[in-house]
Amino acid sequence: MITLAVDAMGGDIGLAVTAPAASAFLQQHTDTRLIMTGDETLIRQALQQANAPISRIDIVHTDEVVAMDETPQHALKNKKRSSMRLAIEAVKSGEAMAAVSAGNTGALMATARFVLKTLPGIERPAIAKFLPTSNQQSVLILDLGANADCTAEQLLQFALLGSELSNALKPNCAPAKIGLLNIGSEDIKGTEIVKKTFQLLQQSSLNFVGNVEGDDILKGNVDVIIADGFVGNIVLKTIEGTVKFMSQGIKETFQETWLSKLRALVALPTLKIFKQRFDPRRYNGAIFLGLRGIVLKSHGGTDAVGFTYALEEAYQQAKTADLTQLSERITQQLNQQTA
Amino acid sequence: MITLAVDAMGGDIGLAVTAPAASAFLQQHTDTRLIMTGDETLIRQALQQANAPISRIDIVHTDEVVAMDETPQHALKNKKRSSMRLAIEAVKSGEAMAAVSAGNTGALMATARFVLKTLPGIERPAIAKFLPTSNQQSVLILDLGANADCTAEQLLQFALLGSELSNALKPNCAPAKIGLLNIGSEDIKGTEIVKKTFQLLQQSSLNFVGNVEGDDILKGNVDVIIADGFVGNIVLKTIEGTVKFMSQGIKETFQETWLSKLRALVALPTLKIFKQRFDPRRYNGAIFLGLRGIVLKSHGGTDAVGFTYALEEAYQQAKTADLTQLSERITQQLNQQTA
Repeated sequence: MITLAVDAMGGDIGLAVTAPAASAFLQQHTDTRLIMTGDETLIRQALQQANAPISRIDIVHTDEVVAMDETPQHALKNKKRSSMRLAIEAVKSGEAMAAVSAGNTGALMATARFVLKTLPGIERPAIAKFLPTSNQQSVLILDLGANADCTAEQLLQFALLGSELSNALKPNCAPAKIGLLNIGSEDIKGTEIVKKTFQLLQQSSLNFVGNVEGDDILKGNVDVIIADGFVGNIVLKTIEGTVKFMSQGIKETFQETWLSKLRALVALPTLKIFKQRFDPRRYNGAIFLGLRGIVLKSHGGTDAVGFTYALEEAYQQAKTADLTQLSERITQQLNQQTA
Repeated sequence: MITLAVDAMGGDIGLAVTAPAASAFLQQHTDTRLIMTGDETLIRQALQQANAPISRIDIVHTDEVVAMDETPQHALKNKKRSSMRLAIEAVKSGEAMAAVSAGNTGALMATARFVLKTLPGIERPAIAKFLPTSNQQSVLILDLGANADCTAEQLLQFALLGSELSNALKPNCAPAKIGLLNIGSEDIKGTEIVKKTFQLLQQSSLNFVGNVEGDDILKGNVDVIIADGFVGNIVLKTIEGTVKFMSQGIKETFQETWLSKLRALVALPTLKIFKQRFDPRRYNGAIFLGLRGIVLKSHGGTDAVGFTYALEEAYQQAKTADLTQLSERITQQLNQQTA
């Protein structure tokens, strides 16, 4: 049995999203239980409306909720029984194998770090995400914004974490190919920190394949892409913005004349298949990597479908990622590194 | 009369692209002359084949060509009469108002900087480019890779340069809105250097509107976006890669079944209009900003259509950008800044 903890109140609209998602998720996975944290009366109501299999849900009541615009410091100090914090505490105590929240990212990261602590040898946790690729694979990219300024050593730690997660999720594949996001393929390219990271990665026992450029990200040539949180966050949002730009452009072109509108009617079913395939909701779960416990961040503005995908991601990780093994391997590799 | 200098031999296939582009460009603009640098016999042959208006072309002969993989240092030292260098020398001597090359970017930047020098107060030149936006405007983004590590002062200089160019090209509009590429809208976001740049921009006389994020780039809310060359280059290539990823995805979805293939036939004319509108060849000219002369870099692998767009961009700038005025205004603003 796999148990996940869900911050039922997190996100822009909270229960209206988390309750139907919980219901859909439990119906898909009969080997799963959920711990839902938040206002018990409201949760019960929402679950009933969503026809959720209530026998597999434990509710942990609290009145406290972290606001979407609250500072991490304020949340840490004043919301010690927030729905977000209780979900993470359930991971800490071992009651749940992973926590999922659509709440305030900064507060979630600060709380997760404070409650769970980082793995041995890992200075700072990172945010990672799987993106779809042209060759029907996926690529894990990190950091996506937890750490704006990073040292080369921290970037190496991110590579270790990404490699371990990728290997855990694809146990029968070759070791994850690691790429360093850069502005050219030669090792002399990039900022001073990135050049140093290149050397550290080359000396490591990781399957480092060299630099990758911006137009390589979605090609699927590597399994894991390493960047600092400043570059990673800008890149992720640039991809999202470009997808929107293209979708809007196609839509507008099809609406220009009566003839193009007619053509749109015919093309619509295929365009819909395309849209579904690259639906951003399918890549909703951002993973907090480097903690002594699995925490996933769902987009705050997602709907029930998107939140279900975040639960799915947490489920896959809870099933496959053995944190004790992972932490042992990281310690081992860091020792090799410094030896 | 406007005279442009063209490195006839530059690019992956040189004359097969530059000669037909020169011909098409001269036919579009009767107030224009070209100076073409390179192998005279080959240039004459190629121009004849392209039916070029030869009376408006001066050929400056040379045997030397900078190779696409040559180091900037090697080109500077050993190719003092390269087709690239002679095109830039024509700008320096005042014979041409702008130079265009599809050659080796590093060598072109090093040569342009060596021959033309930077404007007073500008430490390092930057590479800039106009990108299309959702609201049918365009946005100028810089730096795109000339400077991986930048100081806050250099980023401020890029903002000055971008603002001046945008204002020169849109003389009847409000002062260019400047955005700083960052990972959040608050002024406390970003790396230490970006935070400092935010303060410098706020103290400047520029029309600084604050931070913009990755998904804002193609929205068209600002006229100029500032980033260091590391982030800017990765962002530009990420946009290119995402456009390719989407185009390929749409193509594949339309080719999946006989029904979708049928639908594709109907949709094709509209999809083609869309493709033309966002044709990367239309945004081919990368501008070297901050030099005492106008230099444009065309993509090395572009075709004649793409190279014509680069010539067009050079023509517009040569027509509108008064470098003496620009350099005076930059000096003035830098003085205000340090006062």
